[in-house]
Amino acid sequence: MSDSPRPAIGRPRRELADQVFAETLRLVDEVGYAKATCERVASGTGIAKTTIYRRWPTKGELIVDVLLDAFGSVPVVLGDRRLIVESSIRWIASRIEQPGVGAAFAGVFSDAIRDPALRTILATKLQEPYKLALQETLGESEQRVLFLIDLVTGTLLHRLGMTGEPMDDGDLNALIELVVAATA
Amino acid sequence: MSDSPRPAIGRPRRELADQVFAETLRLVDEVGYAKATCERVASGTGIAKTTIYRRWPTKGELIVDVLLDAFGSVPVVLGDRRLIVESSIRWIASRIEQPGVGAAFAGVFSDAIRDPALRTILATKLQEPYKLALQETLGESEQRVLFLIDLVTGTLLHRLGMTGEPMDDGDLNALIELVVAATA
Repeated sequence: MSDSPRPAIGRPRRELADQVFAETLRLVDEVGYAKATCERVASGTGIAKTTIYRRWPTKGELIVDVLLDAFGSVPVVLGDRRLIVESSIRWIASRIEQPGVGAAFAGVFSDAIRDPALRTILATKLQEPYKLALQETLGESEQRVLFLIDLVTGTLLHRLGMTGEPMDDGDLNALIELVVAATA
Repeated sequence: MSDSPRPAIGRPRRELADQVFAETLRLVDEVGYAKATCERVASGTGIAKTTIYRRWPTKGELIVDVLLDAFGSVPVVLGDRRLIVESSIRWIASRIEQPGVGAAFAGVFSDAIRDPALRTILATKLQEPYKLALQETLGESEQRVLFLIDLVTGTLLHRLGMTGEPMDDGDLNALIELVVAATA
């Protein structure tokens, strides 16, 4: 994908992913989730469709990798429950407000309702590491952590869908207080 | 659309809507939101595409009418805050678990993130009557009621997207307790 003089091992594969992820988010932000197809990503990047499909056989798999890349690794927070809850909620809110990320996130959930294979990928690749980190740091049960993930992520995405805007600070603070009270 | 001997005024229009709504929900449940197009609704019902487009110029407008029909009128609950919160949450949860309804609801929010005209329709036609009823019965501010709508609907839809199943009774009760505490 590149002829610039760089260390070879793994680099082209990484650069290909970076280009594909950036173009996917740009398309989702510009034309919406439904119209951001793998075909358009191919024509926008100049990367062959077959190359994209070989690595991401479905749009769902591509979107999950885009989101994993945008979210980055699990933030490790040490401190009391309030600090953990507050920093976790501010972290996911800051990711959801990045251009294209919230719409990609909401779109993939909407697709997943009728797609068991995509739900498995979402649960194992996307949700699992955050779930385990929260179980560990909060000392809550798996069921309770899954409930809190639904609560926080669902609320932030519903706000984005209804208003087209991320949640403002006042309501974000209200959400933090509510979850702090629910984990006390 | 029908040649059966029935009172004429308004009836054919109503029957057309019933057929279109039922076929839309069936399609969303069967093939998912993205593939449930107006074209497929037309071929599934035998109603002309032009007839459907004349009444619902966009898929978003069709889906909002499908949801309004599935939700029905605002339930009037008299009683204390706990009773109002509990019956409202059980009511929306019972609607979201109807076949096709949750997926149509999640899909239209996902589309709305990049579609200001659709957001306006969602806010004024779908959300407004429920918002006003909750402001009136709970005596909470508009901002607080909008926050609680994001919280409850977002949580239920996120659960549906992650698991393909409605929220179980235990977690639904936890959601009710959380909102009761937040409105006390």
